[in-house]
Amino acid sequence: MPEPELIDHAGLDSVVYIRIYLMGLKIFVPITLLAFAVLVPVNWTGGTLEQIKDLTFSNIDKLSISNIPPGSKRFCAHVLMSYIFTFWTFYVIYKEYKTTAFMRLQFLASESRRPDQFTVLVRNVPPDPDESVTEHVEHFFCVNHPDHYLTHQVVYNANKLANLVAKKKSLQNWLTYHQNKYERNPSSKPTTKTGFWGLWGTRVDAIDYYTAEIGKLSEEEDKERERVINDPNAVVPAAFVSFKSRWGAAVCAQTQQTSNPTIWLTERAPEPRDVYWDNLAIPYFELTIRRLLVAVGLFFLIFFFMLPIAFVQSLASIEGIEKVFPFLKPVIEMKFIKSLVQGILPGIALKIFLIVLPIILIIMSKIEGFTSLSSLDRRSAVKYHLFLLVNVFVGSIVTGTAMDQLKTFLNQSATEIPKTIGVSIPLKATFFITYIMVDGWSAIAAEILRLVPLVMFHLKNTFLVKTEQDRDQAMDPGCVDFATSEPRIQFYFLLGLVYAAVTPLLLPFIIVFFAFSYTVFRHQIINVYNQKYESGAAFWPDVHRRLIIGLIIAQLLLLGLMSTKEARELTPLLVALPILTIWFHVFCKGRFESAFVKFPLQDAMVRDTLERATDPNLNLKMYLQDAYIHPVFRGGELERPEIIDEEEDNPLVPTTRNSQKSQSKYSSDVSSGAGS
Amino acid sequence: MPEPELIDHAGLDSVVYIRIYLMGLKIFVPITLLAFAVLVPVNWTGGTLEQIKDLTFSNIDKLSISNIPPGSKRFCAHVLMSYIFTFWTFYVIYKEYKTTAFMRLQFLASESRRPDQFTVLVRNVPPDPDESVTEHVEHFFCVNHPDHYLTHQVVYNANKLANLVAKKKSLQNWLTYHQNKYERNPSSKPTTKTGFWGLWGTRVDAIDYYTAEIGKLSEEEDKERERVINDPNAVVPAAFVSFKSRWGAAVCAQTQQTSNPTIWLTERAPEPRDVYWDNLAIPYFELTIRRLLVAVGLFFLIFFFMLPIAFVQSLASIEGIEKVFPFLKPVIEMKFIKSLVQGILPGIALKIFLIVLPIILIIMSKIEGFTSLSSLDRRSAVKYHLFLLVNVFVGSIVTGTAMDQLKTFLNQSATEIPKTIGVSIPLKATFFITYIMVDGWSAIAAEILRLVPLVMFHLKNTFLVKTEQDRDQAMDPGCVDFATSEPRIQFYFLLGLVYAAVTPLLLPFIIVFFAFSYTVFRHQIINVYNQKYESGAAFWPDVHRRLIIGLIIAQLLLLGLMSTKEARELTPLLVALPILTIWFHVFCKGRFESAFVKFPLQDAMVRDTLERATDPNLNLKMYLQDAYIHPVFRGGELERPEIIDEEEDNPLVPTTRNSQKSQSKYSSDVSSGAGS
Repeated sequence: MPEPELIDHAGLDSVVYIRIYLMGLKIFVPITLLAFAVLVPVNWTGGTLEQIKDLTFSNIDKLSISNIPPGSKRFCAHVLMSYIFTFWTFYVIYKEYKTTAFMRLQFLASESRRPDQFTVLVRNVPPDPDESVTEHVEHFFCVNHPDHYLTHQVVYNANKLANLVAKKKSLQNWLTYHQNKYERNPSSKPTTKTGFWGLWGTRVDAIDYYTAEIGKLSEEEDKERERVINDPNAVVPAAFVSFKSRWGAAVCAQTQQTSNPTIWLTERAPEPRDVYWDNLAIPYFELTIRRLLVAVGLFFLIFFFMLPIAFVQSLASIEGIEKVFPFLKPVIEMKFIKSLVQGILPGIALKIFLIVLPIILIIMSKIEGFTSLSSLDRRSAVKYHLFLLVNVFVGSIVTGTAMDQLKTFLNQSATEIPKTIGVSIPLKATFFITYIMVDGWSAIAAEILRLVPLVMFHLKNTFLVKTEQDRDQAMDPGCVDFATSEPRIQFYFLLGLVYAAVTPLLLPFIIVFFAFSYTVFRHQIINVYNQKYESGAAFWPDVHRRLIIGLIIAQLLLLGLMSTKEARELTPLLVALPILTIWFHVFCKGRFESAFVKFPLQDAMVRDTLERATDPNLNLKMYLQDAYIHPVFRGGELERPEIIDEEEDNPLVPTTRNSQKSQSKYSSDVSSGAGS
Repeated sequence: MPEPELIDHAGLDSVVYIRIYLMGLKIFVPITLLAFAVLVPVNWTGGTLEQIKDLTFSNIDKLSISNIPPGSKRFCAHVLMSYIFTFWTFYVIYKEYKTTAFMRLQFLASESRRPDQFTVLVRNVPPDPDESVTEHVEHFFCVNHPDHYLTHQVVYNANKLANLVAKKKSLQNWLTYHQNKYERNPSSKPTTKTGFWGLWGTRVDAIDYYTAEIGKLSEEEDKERERVINDPNAVVPAAFVSFKSRWGAAVCAQTQQTSNPTIWLTERAPEPRDVYWDNLAIPYFELTIRRLLVAVGLFFLIFFFMLPIAFVQSLASIEGIEKVFPFLKPVIEMKFIKSLVQGILPGIALKIFLIVLPIILIIMSKIEGFTSLSSLDRRSAVKYHLFLLVNVFVGSIVTGTAMDQLKTFLNQSATEIPKTIGVSIPLKATFFITYIMVDGWSAIAAEILRLVPLVMFHLKNTFLVKTEQDRDQAMDPGCVDFATSEPRIQFYFLLGLVYAAVTPLLLPFIIVFFAFSYTVFRHQIINVYNQKYESGAAFWPDVHRRLIIGLIIAQLLLLGLMSTKEARELTPLLVALPILTIWFHVFCKGRFESAFVKFPLQDAMVRDTLERATDPNLNLKMYLQDAYIHPVFRGGELERPEIIDEEEDNPLVPTTRNSQKSQSKYSSDVSSGAGS
């Protein structure tokens, strides 16, 4: 499948995501060839390790920088190679940034008319004693964007309603389940208990009971729906404001509206399915407090996460269990069970924490107040990347928990830290090779077999699935989990960059990982995954920044390593590298980042002009009317209090939306079929 | 003089500048009272210094934190006070930021129509093979801002022409000088030599010679002027684009024009007299390279500036002179001269460097490529502040040059650095009190007497002044030199914040400094200074940021000091302070900074509407036509190749400009009269 077709099929996000793997190959294949051609012979003939008596070393060590005697002139080769590797990486990631920016711009330019092109999300609408939110918004934009303002949609605080809808859906599901049961076996009428989860209470006829309950809920839901629509307090101070042209929307999204920058905040609206509705109403001051708390929380999560785990582990030991549950003592004291408990328990707390970690990070990002699912994912990825850096990378190299490391590093000088880590780098090569195979390769093998989804599906099927609808849901193939998988890729980039000049033998393993992943994920994206949202590769600046962080870490560690090797005259040369890298980052940021965060007026104007020529009768107001309504209102139940326009029966737009919907349903059917 | 009148008279920049001193008083008067009420008694009764035998100490030391025994509970008072001081500072600088932002917005709203309100500076216009720059600009903005684009002015590369004009002016000056001489003494016709500076060459009649030279130059100038106007290569790829409304200009300045963010860069145009013309044509890539080089250069300037000075000093020693000029040996060996040379020479190189430093910093900022004089000043202030921090503050506390300090700090741990500095803080109190008196108080005394300008004026009068015009120039009173004086104020803020909790006795000296400065500078601004440009207090975010830096340094040093005092349980409390401070900075930045960098659409719209109502016949195009032309073209000599508009004879606007001009001339007359 060629790339343009792939973009049509799976969206730009997915395509750019698999390009990260491709970029890994582009970076590391030439580096590996060069390292094997130059560094391996230089290291191999270093001959230090053989001279030291009483030292066991593997051939891997003989191929690494450890085999070069201190103060040797051969280190020039490593410094030179480090320069070449850096510049090659610059070249590749510059080109990738350029390509991605181009792809994004082309994607944005080529995609069909979408509501978010015309819409701006306005937050922190100031309260007005005389006007409702909707009037206030309308007046403000009529005055300040008189030639461009078209319409707007207010945001309802529909959390309670959403709860009711979800509850009703669950009851409906139970009703279907009991009806099915009754149809299959008409002899016994199914019964249920009225208490919690049907576990206790008086026994009643299930079908009657659920029908009655649903009836009650429906009434309640209608009442709540009416309240939400009519109560002015149910409207949060945020709105989706739509403009007559893309130009008008681009202007409004990029400019400041009033002299107080904490009210009337405008940003380009996320696409409707990408909106995270709960966060639209956070005032500015609360937002800054939340960010502070989350930052402090993240610090503690990263550096002190071992504390609660150690506590749980101490409780979950044999002695702990015997203390709390004395009656279990005879069982536990059995030799088989005792060894099992001792073997499994300490690890299990850590494992559970690591599984729960992405969820914790997503919750933290939600607390931070981002308004779209894609930005939540991106923020979580930032946090996960930090966690991996500190706890997996540094944690594997330096012994002790992150807390101990923090204490050590605080008491070490700025020049001492890279030395401490750098010295251990060559020694850990074998460990990381194993890590790549165990964690990287096997994860991909599991991905292609879809082991985890298979197990999850069967678990759900056994315990939770009651109706056909449930089964469909359980079979949902999911999507690329950007928040956790991208930081993991970055970890392999980091390993590759760090070891390129130190132990080149690690590089082929990285290459195999990237090649293997690329093939597998390409396949999954084509045949399995569903797309949750489309952000147009908005995550690329993050990917680029993390690569730069990897480069700088690699350079600093090499600097630290070199300074212990009595190669003093070479260190100034290595100091220049991180400075160059930071400059390169600033340069790329200035050159490309705005393609991902801003919306150029020229492109907007071109599309507006084109559309005016091809589709002069378009009723944009009608098209945008219902684009941004809370998902619980979808289904036409929202009564509109607005005056109905005379052009409202224009059928142009609903058709487009229906066809889009049916198309996405089709692709989901296809992929879920392939995934099961 | 009340504040609004002062703003009218001296501009917002000056008024806000003296408010910095006022803010110093607002911060430090309550802090001083509290410190004297609480900390001084606590310290005085500490009684440690008296117990130590063989220790000479002053009463100042008895009032400082040194008098408290290690591990004492009394440190709670210092920590508590440090919190109170921090929050009080927060309160004051928050209010000041708010007031300044409000003043700026009001100032911008109230000022009369000005060209920069309608104009956007466009840089990096991409080359086009088919069109000239002016056509390209016009087409681009006609297409992308069709409803708002009005006109534009290209920028000519008139550096050569400017040189010619300057040369002609100097010759003219000589001519006037000789004519005056001849008039006073008609008997001897003045002569001059044709060579360099009139020092050698054949002797000729001066008046004839200069008249001929001026004639030649005028011809050359005319030719060059014609070339600049007609040669398409003399147009740099930048333009001042004007819009029909303030709204249109605000939109264009804040949005991105094309998908390539390195071309068609738009920013709000500086006011005409604020433009730094030489930097308008730097391409994006060159700009990033320049910034990198200047950053590296600044690092070396700050940390290694002692190297060349030490080199000069070694040359300028008695032995060095004797080596290079052996014939001077008998003179130098005389006892009086020898001691003079030994006493003065080592200091003189350093003194010259410190006088030249602001010029070096301004040149560095010019290399960085900023396009307005005000931003050049602001950037130089950033650099000067860093220099003062490293070389004066840290340099006075820790012995050794900045280079040595850098080496020490690199080899110290992150927790060790604040300790090293913090421990020395109480010991240096006497030194800094002397410093405040010698450097701060005396500088202000010199300022009120205008000693430096007086000396400079007499020097110039004796050696350089030849004509009346020269004398006028020498009598120019100058203006507030923001780039050097603001960082110096910040230094006193820093001292006050650092010593507030350590040696409160220093605070009254700071207060005297601020009170004295406020009175003096207020007087100078009212009666003496000329205004060079008006940026509308655009420097305030920098002032705020530097105050925050001062606060954080003070907090870290107190933390370092405390951790040596065996008050371990108090340190976590102190760690929270810098985090809070950083959060406060982020909060203030989000809350107020945009008032200084962005231009809200609402305000623009209000002013546009108002103007349309009050002045419906305004010919804006005529008004903006000549607003942004290079100063060498001023004087009506620029032939305009454009087509003349039919409405061009509207007399409305020139009147306004003339009245403005005459007004500024009037105020300059007044102030120069007062200054002499």
